[in-house]
Amino acid sequence: MNPVIELLNNHRSIRKFKDEALDKETVRTLVTAAQSASTSSYVQAYSIMGVTDKDKKAALREISTQPYVEHNGHLFVFLIDYNRHVELSKDKGEPIAFDKTEQLIVGTVDAALAAQNLAVAAESMELGICYIGSLRNDMARVIEILELPKGVVPLFGMVAGHPDHSGSKKERLPFEAVYHENTYQPVGELKDVIDDYDARISDYYSDRTEGRRRDTWSDQVIGMLGQKQRLDVDGVVKGQGFLGQ
Amino acid sequence: MNPVIELLNNHRSIRKFKDEALDKETVRTLVTAAQSASTSSYVQAYSIMGVTDKDKKAALREISTQPYVEHNGHLFVFLIDYNRHVELSKDKGEPIAFDKTEQLIVGTVDAALAAQNLAVAAESMELGICYIGSLRNDMARVIEILELPKGVVPLFGMVAGHPDHSGSKKERLPFEAVYHENTYQPVGELKDVIDDYDARISDYYSDRTEGRRRDTWSDQVIGMLGQKQRLDVDGVVKGQGFLGQ
Repeated sequence: MNPVIELLNNHRSIRKFKDEALDKETVRTLVTAAQSASTSSYVQAYSIMGVTDKDKKAALREISTQPYVEHNGHLFVFLIDYNRHVELSKDKGEPIAFDKTEQLIVGTVDAALAAQNLAVAAESMELGICYIGSLRNDMARVIEILELPKGVVPLFGMVAGHPDHSGSKKERLPFEAVYHENTYQPVGELKDVIDDYDARISDYYSDRTEGRRRDTWSDQVIGMLGQKQRLDVDGVVKGQGFLGQ
Repeated sequence: MNPVIELLNNHRSIRKFKDEALDKETVRTLVTAAQSASTSSYVQAYSIMGVTDKDKKAALREISTQPYVEHNGHLFVFLIDYNRHVELSKDKGEPIAFDKTEQLIVGTVDAALAAQNLAVAAESMELGICYIGSLRNDMARVIEILELPKGVVPLFGMVAGHPDHSGSKKERLPFEAVYHENTYQPVGELKDVIDDYDARISDYYSDRTEGRRRDTWSDQVIGMLGQKQRLDVDGVVKGQGFLGQ
């Protein structure tokens, strides 16, 4: 296994950082690595917002509820961005459209590929990162705080910084449950594999909480997906000009 | 700049491969690295399909129109996957829902983070890759070819293999046009930066085509976004159970 693959396989989320802001050069290095990722048809339908303003960070922390959204080396917010293309198209007098599912997918994929490159670059510099999906707890408020124009959707955040704990690696689903070859294999045919995985995850939580928590992976994700969270995302995304009829 | 960041910054798409299939161990190494990426709330809402079957590859090539979809070291298709969660929830008698924009975003982000880790892992092994967004030219047909159940959406493909050309790096938008700090900066305030970039891209195309092609980045992406491509994606995604009312 080469050192890059070792780095990737060793990923763990970091949720506590030393009180040391990333300098401008580091931020530029990280963003440049992010931009080097592939982009759908060269469209580059994303932007990255760095948030250093204390009031804005505090307001975003309220949405996320996670203290590390406020206390970190740097806070990035990844945006789908077609505002850029709309503005340029006005100069050229050629109208563009981004209101279909295709463009939501393109923007989300572009932003996510860039983000993952940024994460890998940060970890290669011995920084830690954590994705902040919880900004979608109130996407409308994020738009307000960051004053985002139409054509822009805040997808998720990422905090980066010098780690102040070691984090712990969470075992992923077994290879067989994620990788299919030529034909989709329903999870029902992998009952033993999933049961074993669930048992290991339950042990993991139990070990970390002195037995107070014992839920399996299946319990956890099914419970979460049963809750119908973030129903407002749909309306906010449409309000920004996406997913029209 | 450390070697990992150098690797990331050196990315270029590879569109011609030596006739040498990736072995099973390499595929497992790549998929394992993919799985190590972050996943939203641990939900792991994606699957990866390897396609080695010759007829299926030929059929997917027809959709994409790109010869390298058929001729490569390995073809991966990245899927949003909630079928797994639906099946497991049936066993537990707790219904789940994935029909809102939030779950489409989660699945798309999860799949893209995994894909980008796979891309980085492949490039670290001196393999080349190219994303295949053009599978969305006919998503319904991809679903048919790969026999994908409800809850599963084929987002994009990726080919990997031993490069048979060196590829060329395409310059990204200037840092200033993608990275904002605290406040969103409209592209209109960066006219000179974009004009310079457009001039460089025009030169890049001109150099590669002996002057036959001279379009700027702005021309290219505005032309593309004006075309209203892939209008069927919306209906197919809904047909797989996503984006309900």
